[in-house]
Amino acid sequence: MATSGRLPMPEWMRGYDRHALLGDGMAAVIVTIMLIPQSLAYAMLAGLPPVVGLYASILPLVVYALFGTSRTLSVGPVAVVSLMTAAAAGAVATPGSPEYLAAALVLALLSGVILLAMGVFRLGFVANLLSHPVISGFITASSLLIAAGQLKHLLGIDAGGQTLIRILPSLLGQLGATHLPTLAIGALATGFLLWSRRWMKPALMALRMPAGAAALLARTGPVMVVAASILAVRGLDLQARGVAVVGDIPQGLPPLSLPAFDPTMWIALLPAATLIALVGFVESVSVAQTLAAKRRQSINPDRELIGLGMANLAAAFSGGYPVTGGFARSVVNFDAGAQTPAAGAMTAVGIGLASVFLTPLLYHLPVAVLAATIIVAVLGLADFGALARTWRYSRSDFAALAATLVTTLCIGVETGIMAGVAVSVLLHLWAASRPHVAVIGLVPGTQHFRNVQRHDVQCTPSILGLRIDESLFFANARAIETVIQQQVATRPELRHVVLNCAAVNSIDASALESLELVMHRLQDAGIRLHLSEVKGPVMDRLQHSDFLRHLTGQVFLSHYQALTALVP
Amino acid sequence: MATSGRLPMPEWMRGYDRHALLGDGMAAVIVTIMLIPQSLAYAMLAGLPPVVGLYASILPLVVYALFGTSRTLSVGPVAVVSLMTAAAAGAVATPGSPEYLAAALVLALLSGVILLAMGVFRLGFVANLLSHPVISGFITASSLLIAAGQLKHLLGIDAGGQTLIRILPSLLGQLGATHLPTLAIGALATGFLLWSRRWMKPALMALRMPAGAAALLARTGPVMVVAASILAVRGLDLQARGVAVVGDIPQGLPPLSLPAFDPTMWIALLPAATLIALVGFVESVSVAQTLAAKRRQSINPDRELIGLGMANLAAAFSGGYPVTGGFARSVVNFDAGAQTPAAGAMTAVGIGLASVFLTPLLYHLPVAVLAATIIVAVLGLADFGALARTWRYSRSDFAALAATLVTTLCIGVETGIMAGVAVSVLLHLWAASRPHVAVIGLVPGTQHFRNVQRHDVQCTPSILGLRIDESLFFANARAIETVIQQQVATRPELRHVVLNCAAVNSIDASALESLELVMHRLQDAGIRLHLSEVKGPVMDRLQHSDFLRHLTGQVFLSHYQALTALVP
Repeated sequence: MATSGRLPMPEWMRGYDRHALLGDGMAAVIVTIMLIPQSLAYAMLAGLPPVVGLYASILPLVVYALFGTSRTLSVGPVAVVSLMTAAAAGAVATPGSPEYLAAALVLALLSGVILLAMGVFRLGFVANLLSHPVISGFITASSLLIAAGQLKHLLGIDAGGQTLIRILPSLLGQLGATHLPTLAIGALATGFLLWSRRWMKPALMALRMPAGAAALLARTGPVMVVAASILAVRGLDLQARGVAVVGDIPQGLPPLSLPAFDPTMWIALLPAATLIALVGFVESVSVAQTLAAKRRQSINPDRELIGLGMANLAAAFSGGYPVTGGFARSVVNFDAGAQTPAAGAMTAVGIGLASVFLTPLLYHLPVAVLAATIIVAVLGLADFGALARTWRYSRSDFAALAATLVTTLCIGVETGIMAGVAVSVLLHLWAASRPHVAVIGLVPGTQHFRNVQRHDVQCTPSILGLRIDESLFFANARAIETVIQQQVATRPELRHVVLNCAAVNSIDASALESLELVMHRLQDAGIRLHLSEVKGPVMDRLQHSDFLRHLTGQVFLSHYQALTALVP
Repeated sequence: MATSGRLPMPEWMRGYDRHALLGDGMAAVIVTIMLIPQSLAYAMLAGLPPVVGLYASILPLVVYALFGTSRTLSVGPVAVVSLMTAAAAGAVATPGSPEYLAAALVLALLSGVILLAMGVFRLGFVANLLSHPVISGFITASSLLIAAGQLKHLLGIDAGGQTLIRILPSLLGQLGATHLPTLAIGALATGFLLWSRRWMKPALMALRMPAGAAALLARTGPVMVVAASILAVRGLDLQARGVAVVGDIPQGLPPLSLPAFDPTMWIALLPAATLIALVGFVESVSVAQTLAAKRRQSINPDRELIGLGMANLAAAFSGGYPVTGGFARSVVNFDAGAQTPAAGAMTAVGIGLASVFLTPLLYHLPVAVLAATIIVAVLGLADFGALARTWRYSRSDFAALAATLVTTLCIGVETGIMAGVAVSVLLHLWAASRPHVAVIGLVPGTQHFRNVQRHDVQCTPSILGLRIDESLFFANARAIETVIQQQVATRPELRHVVLNCAAVNSIDASALESLELVMHRLQDAGIRLHLSEVKGPVMDRLQHSDFLRHLTGQVFLSHYQALTALVP
């Protein structure tokens, strides 16, 4: 574990040896090969020039290696964050315009600052608002949106829309204009990618290749498709026959960029940047924790915020766009033997070399191949089984998942997440707002008290014992008021109410005011309010208020003492 | 208590007798006298013509009498809701324009529909989101905003602004233009109202009037000021000397109105209408419950939603604006002897008669007197002591209160409430996101397990016992992951983790997925996960998932059994 307050780097550097260097180097080569088509494709998904994807895969990786705590996380452009970038930048500028590029930089800057602030002020818990059902619904919806949005590139047609209900009619309307050579390339690429995901490893193993090497080679499917399609386009002169290609990619290392200071744009992009930061953080931490656990390492979520925040700032200042830890890439990095964050830095060198030397070769890369790469990658993310599993387990979690899924598909990514968070928080508070309150009576011959509805117990008409099985806070404060009042309204002989607080771990200011209100209402009706079995920390807190001084009754150590003292 | 699903009216009508009629009639007379100046003043505060206040005090009262469950709540225009109406309508239209009036009707309609929907779908718990500190901060900030906003009428100057930071400079800039006759009237009215609130009752009692009658007569202070000021303006011809008066008020009963169907406006007003509905409901229920308790009656919050919703619909269809139960008026109604909701219906008749016969007399009523009525009424609502009390009791509740207060004063009423809700929900989730998790060991010679940090207990290096003292849900799911992972990372000999679930009342889908993740991570590290002392309902829920089938370890009835079975 990293020592808080210091860079985590020295720790892994101290033990750095030949073995680590070999592992990191091997992993870096594999991840670089995987990352080149991914970075180009995800930039296209984000509505940005392909080179922005390469830029986002250089400096951010080096910076994460210095500040992050995961030893194997592969930071860079990822699909879902690219979609969110497209939605956010598209809301303030036209894709292709200089303002759109500026918006992407601002998003990286803002989400970097937000992540850093969350790290410095220990606000990582905010990410907990994104419950698993919300994330699951969001990822599934996003992958559908992404795949649907890429179909136009596969078909070689012009279609638009940011939500499923706009993309689909637009696609259907243009279906007649499908460009057959493009479709052929796209279909071939998709078919090969699907095959390579599933069958290339068994096929290579059948050719007597060792399992490990076969698995790694199978990961190079996307780069093989890229190479083959470039050769095909050049050899068959397909560009002249209307197949869209990536075209000119500026050659060289990323320029130093300064995100535009435009307060209106910053404010407009702030909500989206916050969501990008949260989603990126949640995905990253989840991957990093899973990988760390495999080697009995651990990561520090608060430090991860710093690492990801710095990586995004690096993206903002080197012509990139928001980055985070990618799932598939990190797994490859781990499997290929990465031992330390140095693997990430070496990957950056690899992408840097590619930016300097390979970009001219990518001129003839068909856009349809990038689309196929994206579609195959994201369809693995969609998890429809989660709908059924969650429905069986809990209806309220299902509601949060469904709300996120439907809203994301039909209205948009930001609204989708926010609707999901709102639904899950509301349902949680709804459950908390109906605390279990039991009327308790004395078990004959003992000093124990039990629920009158479940046990044969003794009650005294002038005394009402209530056990509250929940901490008291604003969500259930009024419910407690109502329960007590309804209980009192049915008992004309009542003189004393004793609240048994054995299960109450805390009382917030709302609940305290409710208790005071209840006390005064009871007083108006000639009834005194007592407490019993109040826990130490709760009692300490109550002593900072006037409640105990105004209390019309007493605080009893045990409920039995209360009964003994109050019985007429 | 009202029987669910039927109108509550028959219950109180069955026992209706001479005594109830007398009580209700007396209360109706007093409340009518109090309500006439209030309804005019609050309409002015809402930026509406004075007659709208009268209209909002007729049909809504009759409808509430039919649908509400409180016997003594006095429904009608209130200060805080009037301020919220002004803020919301002012955001979509210019005060004085027909669109502004239309917006007020739409607000009444929408908040009526929202209240009804909340009642029908039992969503009253949503009001719990408004914690006591948020309401307290909001009411204090609103009363300051209202008082500051009325000062211009007291000074006879033109000033504007919806937030304190705009109102104050605007006032100061115009201070030189103060209209002295207006200021004289305003100051006299304010002085008399303050005196009558505090000293009129003792003064009347010193004149040997019985305490009850003196208290009720003291409540008529505002109507005395109204009458005296009208006479003064007419007698001294102050209108000619520049004193602003109310002017023409249309004579007659409220017209039937149909709120404009303008989807753009409806959507724009929806958030404000929701907040108006929630704030109105919370205030109403709080007053109604306090009054019901005094007579050992109770109210039904879900039915109150229906009652208030219908009252607001009635306001929307009879030229009014959003209404709710008013605190001061309800107390007067109660003290004056109201026995049943019929008192409210009789008050409506009183206001109806006033609308038909009295409006010409109100022509010369100075605006400054209405402003004085408002200022004196709202200053009683501000509670600065709550700041200190809440600070002493709980810093996180103080944060919610302060955030609401400052945001409401500086940005606006809607943002203020939402900021407060966001802060209180976040702070609650923050607290819940750090559950108490104890490493437990066996107390020698017993079958009991205790925290290793507090007790001298036995531990086995290959077995880790963890007790989680909290229900597991999305806010703390990831914290549990991290805690377990950190504990495991420091114990190289570990083979078994046993989670003691005695204090876990529920596990939501997020926590379940976290447990599964933890289980797989532990499995990757060669460690098995076991559960002990799982509660019945939690076990039932788990059986609807695959968790138990995949569980790498066992579920033990007691933690001691786990130890016995697992010890090597």
